[in-house]
Amino acid sequence: MSANDDLLTFLRETLGSTGVLTDDLERYRVDWAGARGGLPLAVARPATSEQVAQVLGYCHRHDIPVVPQGGGSGLVEGALPDSQTPELVISLERLNKIRSIDPINFTVSVDAGCVLQTIKDAAEAEDCTFPLALGAQGSCQIGGNIATNAGGLNVLRYGMMRQLVLGIEVALPDGRLLDDMKALHKNNTGYDLKQLFIGAEGTLGIVTGAVLKLYPRPQVTRTALIGCPDVASVLKLYAQARRSCCDLLTAFELIPRACMELALEADPSLPDPLDAPHPVYVLMEVAASGPADLDSMIEALFERGLEDGLLEDGVLATSDTQAAQLWQLREAMLEGQQRRGEHLRTDVSLPISQLTAFHDQAEAAITEASPDSQVIAYGHVGDGNLHFNILPPAHLDDDDKRSLLHELEEQLFAIVAEFDGSISAEHGIGRVKQPYFLESLSAPEHDIMRGLKRLLDPRGLMSPGRILPRMQR
Amino acid sequence: MSANDDLLTFLRETLGSTGVLTDDLERYRVDWAGARGGLPLAVARPATSEQVAQVLGYCHRHDIPVVPQGGGSGLVEGALPDSQTPELVISLERLNKIRSIDPINFTVSVDAGCVLQTIKDAAEAEDCTFPLALGAQGSCQIGGNIATNAGGLNVLRYGMMRQLVLGIEVALPDGRLLDDMKALHKNNTGYDLKQLFIGAEGTLGIVTGAVLKLYPRPQVTRTALIGCPDVASVLKLYAQARRSCCDLLTAFELIPRACMELALEADPSLPDPLDAPHPVYVLMEVAASGPADLDSMIEALFERGLEDGLLEDGVLATSDTQAAQLWQLREAMLEGQQRRGEHLRTDVSLPISQLTAFHDQAEAAITEASPDSQVIAYGHVGDGNLHFNILPPAHLDDDDKRSLLHELEEQLFAIVAEFDGSISAEHGIGRVKQPYFLESLSAPEHDIMRGLKRLLDPRGLMSPGRILPRMQR
Repeated sequence: MSANDDLLTFLRETLGSTGVLTDDLERYRVDWAGARGGLPLAVARPATSEQVAQVLGYCHRHDIPVVPQGGGSGLVEGALPDSQTPELVISLERLNKIRSIDPINFTVSVDAGCVLQTIKDAAEAEDCTFPLALGAQGSCQIGGNIATNAGGLNVLRYGMMRQLVLGIEVALPDGRLLDDMKALHKNNTGYDLKQLFIGAEGTLGIVTGAVLKLYPRPQVTRTALIGCPDVASVLKLYAQARRSCCDLLTAFELIPRACMELALEADPSLPDPLDAPHPVYVLMEVAASGPADLDSMIEALFERGLEDGLLEDGVLATSDTQAAQLWQLREAMLEGQQRRGEHLRTDVSLPISQLTAFHDQAEAAITEASPDSQVIAYGHVGDGNLHFNILPPAHLDDDDKRSLLHELEEQLFAIVAEFDGSISAEHGIGRVKQPYFLESLSAPEHDIMRGLKRLLDPRGLMSPGRILPRMQR
Repeated sequence: MSANDDLLTFLRETLGSTGVLTDDLERYRVDWAGARGGLPLAVARPATSEQVAQVLGYCHRHDIPVVPQGGGSGLVEGALPDSQTPELVISLERLNKIRSIDPINFTVSVDAGCVLQTIKDAAEAEDCTFPLALGAQGSCQIGGNIATNAGGLNVLRYGMMRQLVLGIEVALPDGRLLDDMKALHKNNTGYDLKQLFIGAEGTLGIVTGAVLKLYPRPQVTRTALIGCPDVASVLKLYAQARRSCCDLLTAFELIPRACMELALEADPSLPDPLDAPHPVYVLMEVAASGPADLDSMIEALFERGLEDGLLEDGVLATSDTQAAQLWQLREAMLEGQQRRGEHLRTDVSLPISQLTAFHDQAEAAITEASPDSQVIAYGHVGDGNLHFNILPPAHLDDDDKRSLLHELEEQLFAIVAEFDGSISAEHGIGRVKQPYFLESLSAPEHDIMRGLKRLLDPRGLMSPGRILPRMQR
């Protein structure tokens, strides 16, 4: 029998026949963004945490590289099977139960393969909320959210995924299970090992379960769209908004006029939201779980912002329908970008106070380098997170577009470095951002990261080549 | 010249004469709780991060054990010099500048030796708040707060120290400086190395600087004291309070009647706060940075709590003086405990939903084992954090008290383990809690922690014997 036959025999014996797939593997080779990976050795679909650990133990003993897979909505190709060295895909899709929910402790204990939306629904049923909010929430899995330290729309109020994890269970590369599923809000006993695995993109072990923090469910939500004269005003308005809305802000999104026009072009049924166009817009959401007078808070913010010249006009949605329409503008903007075909998507972050200077310098540099390209920079102001994207000139062919965008990306990332920013605020490194990432590491950072990898995964079998380069064998 | 002479010469050359102390070292040998350590080799007082790294580099080359020291308010004897193997104390007290503050980015960048209160004052001057709040805030240093992942009164709203750190600078045991002083709210680039050093109690490196998160400064604060029939009602009231106060709660403290009596005994000028005594009290604080109607929120909570039988009486402070008097009860309670002499202080945490069952089972066990001992259990309900303390019978001598308390502690910690709780919610491990801690570790936890220690501090020179046992050389 070949080594692969042995592997399949082991998997069938351990996971049962529904736990192993060898045919029709296409859906395990593609991701949301349309990228495509190689043909895996097989797809293992363990149904328990112990089975995940058993599979890893086997792979450890037989030197078989593995890649864990969640819902496939990653944007850095970290979960796609390698195209050079065949890997065993370990899909968490059958490990998908909510283990328990405790509304008095404000926690939920889940399997890693739970779909984010399922967890959000379970929380709502207990008058709580699990605040992580992503475009992909109907398909992404919580294990993937943890492994990539997902961000999304509500980071401003509730933090990234890392802030929402209280306990964790991880199948280690050597086949043991690390059980730290404690539902404790405070626990200061030794090194906090769960932090190692959050954001490690599956390169140090496979998250199989977690205890997550819940919050009271918002009873009232208010959405407003505000027109501002420039990005600098938006930043000042943000600081005022946090204060006058008592830190109940759940979103504070920057949308330049160019993005608004993309949105109106993509969905002509949407009205231009304010009477006249404005250079930049803020889409703002405030939510409260109790009897707070959000309307008064927002009106006070409007009045003061008008007086101080920080805003020119604004609308406070008076119905859920109107609020949904305002959010639809943001969705349509993303849709409009997609329609323009090949373009550069980035995910940078800066100190909030540097956003104006960064934006202006970066836009000037891109315009100088490629006058016919269009900058589309929107983002989560409160997190300092800009999706500074570039639409290349329409007349170029796809190859020329790609090579131009690659050059522009290098220029842009150099400016990010000048401002002490991050080239990956929330998407992670995976394979796609590895070259820039490795360049940015200092010697001590590099040494410690390599050391962590060697400590947890001495044979280099866990998602090899993601984040750090493949180990020399 | 002896090795110690060489060390002193190096220190004087590197740090100047004010940077080295060899006499009058008493204050570096004692901590807040009155514990006393051994005589150190010397006290190094570096004034820059680079100097800290240089000193560590020298110690690395010459095999000299070191222990970093902040403000000396730790409660687990982690920062006291060893009494068997003389260590070099590295005090951060001269590395005490606020490097910069950025109210638009809501961040402050600080040296590790900054006193917590200094940082809080600097934040206030910019209409912001740095929310960490501890009894020791006038003397503890932020580097110590980071190294111990400090908790305190505001964890409920703002999280532990770990949640407040955005960037870090660490002098590594090999003498290099790890510079990750980025002021970014979101940054997902590779393994998050700062997490290794937060809460590591100085065993993996010395924190020399940090970038911290700020929040809008509260404009309105309301304090209430509520009398409840039992702990179970307090837990239900807590869940309601989070909802009806829109998660603006900054404190929700449980105070049993026995603690209230200790307080009234310690400070007879304080009036019994409600007309009649109640089995348990809640001291609650709500704060908002903008125009929220906190009074209405709290009154609604009172009304509903009365209806539901969760509370019996309550008072909402109508002035700052009255609010201060309510908080004074909590201070006096600590004072009253101290006056009783030798007693057991613990710092356990449980799932909030298990607090009643844990409390009842633990109290019954202690009462059965030692009917004349008195249980004094108060704490931060919202964090599931109980200071479950025990006053031994007054008639015992100190040695008998200590040995009784040691036995009772073992019994208590066994019950904590049954409830999947933590024996150290916020105080850390240091030396004092090491035996219980090591016992509680699973094999994988133990292996990874040992591996981290070997990776970062291969010679075992950083705070040897704290958290993990001294390395075999």
